[in-house]
Amino acid sequence: MSKGITSRSEDYSQWYNDLVIKADLAEYSAVRGCMVIKPYGYAIWERMQAILDKRFKETGHSNAYFPLFIPKSFFSKEASHVEGFATECAVVTHYRLKNDGNGKIVVDEEAKLEEELIVRPTSETIIWNTYRGWIESYRDLPILVNQWANVVRWEMRTRLFLRTAEFLWQEGHTAHATQEEAIAEAEQMLEVYAEFAEGTLAVPVVRGRKTENERFAGALDTLCIEALMQDGKALQAGTSHFLGQNFAKAFDVKFTSKEGKLDYVWATSWGVSTRLMGALIMAHSDDQGLVLPPKLAPIQVVIVPIFKTEEEKANIDAFVDQLNSSLKAQGISVKYDDRDTQRPGFKFAEWELKGVPLRVAVGARDMQNGTVELARRDTQTKETVEQNGLAERIIGLLDEIQDNIYQKALNFRDTHITEVNSYDEFKQVLEEKGGFISCHWDGTVETEKRVKEETKATIRCIPLDAKDEEGVCIFTGKPSNKRVLFAKAY
Amino acid sequence: MSKGITSRSEDYSQWYNDLVIKADLAEYSAVRGCMVIKPYGYAIWERMQAILDKRFKETGHSNAYFPLFIPKSFFSKEASHVEGFATECAVVTHYRLKNDGNGKIVVDEEAKLEEELIVRPTSETIIWNTYRGWIESYRDLPILVNQWANVVRWEMRTRLFLRTAEFLWQEGHTAHATQEEAIAEAEQMLEVYAEFAEGTLAVPVVRGRKTENERFAGALDTLCIEALMQDGKALQAGTSHFLGQNFAKAFDVKFTSKEGKLDYVWATSWGVSTRLMGALIMAHSDDQGLVLPPKLAPIQVVIVPIFKTEEEKANIDAFVDQLNSSLKAQGISVKYDDRDTQRPGFKFAEWELKGVPLRVAVGARDMQNGTVELARRDTQTKETVEQNGLAERIIGLLDEIQDNIYQKALNFRDTHITEVNSYDEFKQVLEEKGGFISCHWDGTVETEKRVKEETKATIRCIPLDAKDEEGVCIFTGKPSNKRVLFAKAY
Repeated sequence: MSKGITSRSEDYSQWYNDLVIKADLAEYSAVRGCMVIKPYGYAIWERMQAILDKRFKETGHSNAYFPLFIPKSFFSKEASHVEGFATECAVVTHYRLKNDGNGKIVVDEEAKLEEELIVRPTSETIIWNTYRGWIESYRDLPILVNQWANVVRWEMRTRLFLRTAEFLWQEGHTAHATQEEAIAEAEQMLEVYAEFAEGTLAVPVVRGRKTENERFAGALDTLCIEALMQDGKALQAGTSHFLGQNFAKAFDVKFTSKEGKLDYVWATSWGVSTRLMGALIMAHSDDQGLVLPPKLAPIQVVIVPIFKTEEEKANIDAFVDQLNSSLKAQGISVKYDDRDTQRPGFKFAEWELKGVPLRVAVGARDMQNGTVELARRDTQTKETVEQNGLAERIIGLLDEIQDNIYQKALNFRDTHITEVNSYDEFKQVLEEKGGFISCHWDGTVETEKRVKEETKATIRCIPLDAKDEEGVCIFTGKPSNKRVLFAKAY
Repeated sequence: MSKGITSRSEDYSQWYNDLVIKADLAEYSAVRGCMVIKPYGYAIWERMQAILDKRFKETGHSNAYFPLFIPKSFFSKEASHVEGFATECAVVTHYRLKNDGNGKIVVDEEAKLEEELIVRPTSETIIWNTYRGWIESYRDLPILVNQWANVVRWEMRTRLFLRTAEFLWQEGHTAHATQEEAIAEAEQMLEVYAEFAEGTLAVPVVRGRKTENERFAGALDTLCIEALMQDGKALQAGTSHFLGQNFAKAFDVKFTSKEGKLDYVWATSWGVSTRLMGALIMAHSDDQGLVLPPKLAPIQVVIVPIFKTEEEKANIDAFVDQLNSSLKAQGISVKYDDRDTQRPGFKFAEWELKGVPLRVAVGARDMQNGTVELARRDTQTKETVEQNGLAERIIGLLDEIQDNIYQKALNFRDTHITEVNSYDEFKQVLEEKGGFISCHWDGTVETEKRVKEETKATIRCIPLDAKDEEGVCIFTGKPSNKRVLFAKAY
């Protein structure tokens, strides 16, 4: 098969689009900015969901479901929230269409809503309005709830997975009796995300804190994980917010403490979205297509038979049957691609494009020799190995591949964090090398904004493990005691 | 705890509402007709999803995701579909709010969409518009895709789970090269639904075919499963449609056959929704609360300790630890309710209300005697049993309970199918007994509509296993050769 993928060096952005389309992950729909997630792309998202959902439950959370629509007035209740979210969103004004009598379908102007409804861009407002009825005393706390849902933000410039008008995500919304507990929750969930990114997606991340300017609208503190893509741009992969009592105050949610005191409830929210698909693709994939870490791959091993006669095929089938059962018994997901409509070379290219970590090819001569050909997607290396002990070897290799993909991304990331101490150096590194730039900043929103205007770089985060270090802001020369990470970002 | 549930005999409808609220399943939200599905209710829905999703995958289907919004013009393309769906739906007309300068948030009239978007009431149109790009030849067929999603239908009279403006569902949409294959698919998925209803929900169903009048808008044939609730009203629990080439023609989806001929693609769609929650509740529950079949219950066994001293508690804890591991090893979901904020009697009532199939109570004296008290939710019977061999006994009992709940519902259903041969008898049975009424009908939409006007009963289905039998329509006296099932329905 002809892959038709632009190379990364030629045009990184086009490479990404080509890959998403050609690997059957997603495509644009008839609705501006909305995507169709195709079965293969959705299978990867389902793996993400399953692994995260398990972790959410292990950390005490339950799933629930809240309405898609939010009354317009709710957005006025939390002052900073409205600026962040109410502006670019889909507005429902009517609830009926009608036939205009000439066979044309039109909006029925008589069916106008009294109050317009907003399609949720995020659910803090409707959820805290609901929590008011759920919480009376400390006995009702904590509430540890998560929602898997679609949300809509009317983005003008969209890119598949990275920025779409509608996207899928999970949003956790928790309610606590104390500030300490809420902060601990926000920190815990950031760590859940970080471990998922590194352990499952094989994407190393910096755990950090957003500056005031980049905080979630309505949060007192936004924690984040930041990943680095192969083109040297950063990508925010997940956020966890300590919301203080802002939403409790906006929606009048109080509780009686053990001591009988009435107080507002403390809140967190945290989320990751189908954006993670973009991070996954851009962190590992190459000019031949997707590279999937084994822990996430919907198909971990593909087996391709090579044969001329029915007898040869039957012989191979019997061998594959056995291999299949051994692998499946160990929880490995295997596909035997014995389609008779395509040749082996076509299949090799297709599964390479789709990022299957390991390919086993077995032909008539292999059967005579008691061997198979094993091909690794990550290193693009092939070797002939014994059929004896093959299942164990495959299981070991999958671990090795998971590790190798992570190490490769980690090496890239680590060699793309550059410390600079002057604005000239800053601009030069940004221009020539990209990646994260570690430097001193004077802590003001103004400086952050001016650097962004001049260079398009933003402060991705103040790393949680940033050391105390005396220094001066690269832009204003004012004193600073910690380095922050700047980067251009998706 | 005071349950505050109206009894079924007093007011069945109020009983249902009370139960949904008090058992923490769902509640109405601030948005008219939209519900909040609470964690306990959602946990039951998640069990339904997991079991169905597994069956869908075992029958060859993959999940995918299509846009929430559908361009208005799409609804005009399939003539009968527009009448069925486009009328009562949420219409998005604008994509921005703004601050009016006086601190009030208003719709930005300048941000008006060129073409209004409909929030999907069902996705045939957007999906078939997408399939056009996926299908060229018979090699691309069949497409076996399912979507888990939220949909919106602007219902004027809503009831929690049964009829809400927004609800959750799955919608399968398949594309086939031949009519036979599409019909077989629609039949297969009906059987998947029927087995799920009977085997998991313990709700017996009639497999049938809708009359022309009750068919899905755009379908050539609608298969359905119909269940009977305790008040003698029927509930449509799932549908599977053979859509012919209607949507392929509306969206110009053609394929080249093996023989090189160009033809329109054949379609099916099939779905079940959170409505199943309503069916589950109304089929089994009683005046004490929910009754959940063990195969669906998020908590299958609850253990309540009864103790006065810390020492007694420690002793019970050790026993429960061991019981817990034995049960969990067998895949049984257990909750140990050792909250110190509530008394045992409160806990008994709470878990009874929430329908947990088995309750184990264990006190200090039990520990001395080597016994526990086992209480069945379905029969409301208690017995004292040996601690020895308890795990095996519990596992056996759960099967027995599943079976008993099904048999009870089946007996009720079977004694509520009444054959009648005259309209007077029809009206009398409908009035005095309810349930399904099996009778002859002349096959015309007109008769069906008139019976509905006069009695509110509709034809629920023509059972797939209906025998050929000569007779006369109870309403018109015209000849008929099959009995159909009438009932009042949800």
